[in-house]
Amino acid sequence: MKKGFFITFEGGDACGKSTQVKLFKEYVATRTDKDNFVFIREPGGTILGEKIRTLLLNFEDDSPVPKAELFLYLASRVQLFEKVIKPALSAGKIVVADRFYDSTIAYQGFAREIFSAKEILKLHKLLLGNFSPNLTFYLKIKPEIAFKRKKAGEKLDRMEKEDISFHQKVYDGYEYISKKEKKRFVVLDATKSIEEIHNQIILKVEKLLAE
Amino acid sequence: MKKGFFITFEGGDACGKSTQVKLFKEYVATRTDKDNFVFIREPGGTILGEKIRTLLLNFEDDSPVPKAELFLYLASRVQLFEKVIKPALSAGKIVVADRFYDSTIAYQGFAREIFSAKEILKLHKLLLGNFSPNLTFYLKIKPEIAFKRKKAGEKLDRMEKEDISFHQKVYDGYEYISKKEKKRFVVLDATKSIEEIHNQIILKVEKLLAE
Repeated sequence: MKKGFFITFEGGDACGKSTQVKLFKEYVATRTDKDNFVFIREPGGTILGEKIRTLLLNFEDDSPVPKAELFLYLASRVQLFEKVIKPALSAGKIVVADRFYDSTIAYQGFAREIFSAKEILKLHKLLLGNFSPNLTFYLKIKPEIAFKRKKAGEKLDRMEKEDISFHQKVYDGYEYISKKEKKRFVVLDATKSIEEIHNQIILKVEKLLAE
Repeated sequence: MKKGFFITFEGGDACGKSTQVKLFKEYVATRTDKDNFVFIREPGGTILGEKIRTLLLNFEDDSPVPKAELFLYLASRVQLFEKVIKPALSAGKIVVADRFYDSTIAYQGFAREIFSAKEILKLHKLLLGNFSPNLTFYLKIKPEIAFKRKKAGEKLDRMEKEDISFHQKVYDGYEYISKKEKKRFVVLDATKSIEEIHNQIILKVEKLLAE
C-alpha cells in the first residue's frame, strides 16, 4: 500500500457501522504498525468539531434547520480535514473515518431533499478540492430490517429518530453513490453476522497493506 | 413604508456600528410603533446562533480554519433567516440587523482571501434565494483612524485582533459593495460625531416610515 491512505465506513442508521469500526480498531491495536493508523469520527474529530457535533445531534433547544444542518456538517468536516486528515495523510498514516462526505450526500442530499447531490458535491469541491477517500466500506442493509434488530430502549439521536421514509431515502442515496463509485466502494451485506463482516473488512485491508 | 422591511448596519471593526445600533434601539423605544421593530445580531440571534457565535469569536481551544469560519457564519445566518427574519418580515415587522451578508463578503471574502465575493454570493443564493436587505447603513472609516480612537484596555474578539492589513482589506470589501449596491447602501462618514451620525440615521428612517 502506498503511503497515506484514507478509509471510510458508511451506511444508514442501525447498519452496524459503529460496531464494525470498533472491531476494526481492536484489530488494528493488535498490529505492530498500529501507530500508523488514525481513527476519526464525523461530525467531530476536532475540539471544534465535537462542539458542532453536540449542536447537530443533541441540541433540542433550537435544532438546526436543514440548511444550517448541512453547513454545520461541512464546517466540522473542513476543520477535521485541515487539522487532522491532511497532516496525517502527508505523514503517511492510514486514516480511518466513521462517516465522511458520502453521509452528507445520503442524509442531507437524498433524505432531506433540500440540496441535490450535485450541489453538495460542488460545496465539497469548494471546501476540499478534489480530495476523496481511497476506500469506502459500505454496510448495506434495508432500513426496515436494520431497525427491527435495534435494541428496545436504546437512546436515539436526532437523525435516528427520523421516520422510516427518511431512512429509506438515505438508503437510496447510498445505492446511488455505490453505483457511481464502484472502484472506491466495497459493498458489504450488513445482514450477515458481525464476525463475517469483520473478517471481510480485515481481508480487504490486509490485502491492501500487502500491496 | 411598505410592510416588512429589512435594515442592516455594516462597517469594519471599531467603526462605531454597535454604538449606533444601540442609539437607534433607544430611539425606537421612544416610538409608539416600537413593537413593530425586531433587533437581531450576527452571528447569533437564535439559541443555536449564539452557540455558533461563541465558537466563532471566543473559542481559543480550536479556532475555526477560514473555510470552517465561513460555513459557521452561514449556518448561523440561515438559522436566523428562517426562524426569525422571514417570519418577522411576513408579519410586517421592521427587522434591524447588526451585520448581515455584506460582512461575510468583506471579512471572509476580501480579508481572508479564501473565497471570492462571487463564490460567497453563490453560497448565499443557495441558502437565502434572492433575499437581500432593503436598506444598509454603512459606517465608513479608514481602519487606521478607527483603531486609533479605540479605548486602550478594551477586550478584543478574534476578528478585532487581526492586524491592520486585514482590516484594510475589510475596508476595501465594503468599498466594493457600496459601489455595487448604490441603491441599498447609505454611506455614513463614521469620523463624524456619534450624535451627528445618529441623526442622519433617524432622518433616513423617519423619511422611509412616512412613505
